[in-house]
Amino acid sequence: MKHDGFNFDEAVAILNRTPASLSALLSGLPETWVKATEGEGTWSPYDVIGHLIHGERTDWIPRARHILAGETRPFAPFDRDAQFTESQDKSLGELLATFANLRRENVASLLAMNLSDEDLHRKGLHPDLGQVTLAQLLATWVVHDLDHVAQVARTMAKVYKQATGPWNVYLSILRDRQG
Amino acid sequence: MKHDGFNFDEAVAILNRTPASLSALLSGLPETWVKATEGEGTWSPYDVIGHLIHGERTDWIPRARHILAGETRPFAPFDRDAQFTESQDKSLGELLATFANLRRENVASLLAMNLSDEDLHRKGLHPDLGQVTLAQLLATWVVHDLDHVAQVARTMAKVYKQATGPWNVYLSILRDRQG
Repeated sequence: MKHDGFNFDEAVAILNRTPASLSALLSGLPETWVKATEGEGTWSPYDVIGHLIHGERTDWIPRARHILAGETRPFAPFDRDAQFTESQDKSLGELLATFANLRRENVASLLAMNLSDEDLHRKGLHPDLGQVTLAQLLATWVVHDLDHVAQVARTMAKVYKQATGPWNVYLSILRDRQG
Repeated sequence: MKHDGFNFDEAVAILNRTPASLSALLSGLPETWVKATEGEGTWSPYDVIGHLIHGERTDWIPRARHILAGETRPFAPFDRDAQFTESQDKSLGELLATFANLRRENVASLLAMNLSDEDLHRKGLHPDLGQVTLAQLLATWVVHDLDHVAQVARTMAKVYKQATGPWNVYLSILRDRQG
């Protein structure tokens, strides 16, 4: 099997771990950390969990099914702002639990597809990016998880940018995604 | 208390969580993820855990004690390459357990210091950065944790850079710290 390094079991290993990683990072933390952003128009850790929930509901598994069904229409576009209405009035603990439940169901659905190597080569049409394969969709699911884990850590780190004083020159994360 | 946003209890909340966050992210993962780097001279998640262990042993608490003792000599310099000899022949599981134990002991030591606001303003001499305060040291400990959590996630994400195909344009983490 050759999909530019994609390996199904290794991908599932990450997908399975992300809810626990985010719970360990965030669960029970003071609002200082959970509601921090990197500036106007950027997301807090709380916003990120809402975004991941929306992805579990509308993106990864629906798009995998779309590809396997041989649909020639493009995927439905993904709403990147859904969490700002959907997360309203929910606690971070509720959001983390919802994400963990949805992810568990979705990994079970993914395993139940019993994907062959041929299936992983099957193609779908992304509304902006054009032709993509099922393996690329699943690799993107994994990288998307890790991207948001890194974002959560980076956003929290920046809360203490001033507080580190002279040390900030050694803490390169404080300069990632500036402005 | 005013130390550019530093708050002792909020800082301890992060310090307490980091071992579990890294275990959730990494424990039991295939070597593909654990031994990946971002290129020559960069660290794998495995290397990062060894580096964090060395920090627990030689950096944070020893430097806090150095400041509280009123030492006028600079801190001992920190060895950024220690993990390449100290981690040899140890499994990732062993390293994660060692880090968790050392961190537990160090947070207990930190709490036992019963630091006053005045203590947090006390100063030490960094060998390269000059005068720093105890609050800045503790804020740096927190940001250093989060920096390495983000690094671990970023390094693993890049394993699938090619595999994501056209989607890589949306996955901004794949372009952080390029080359």
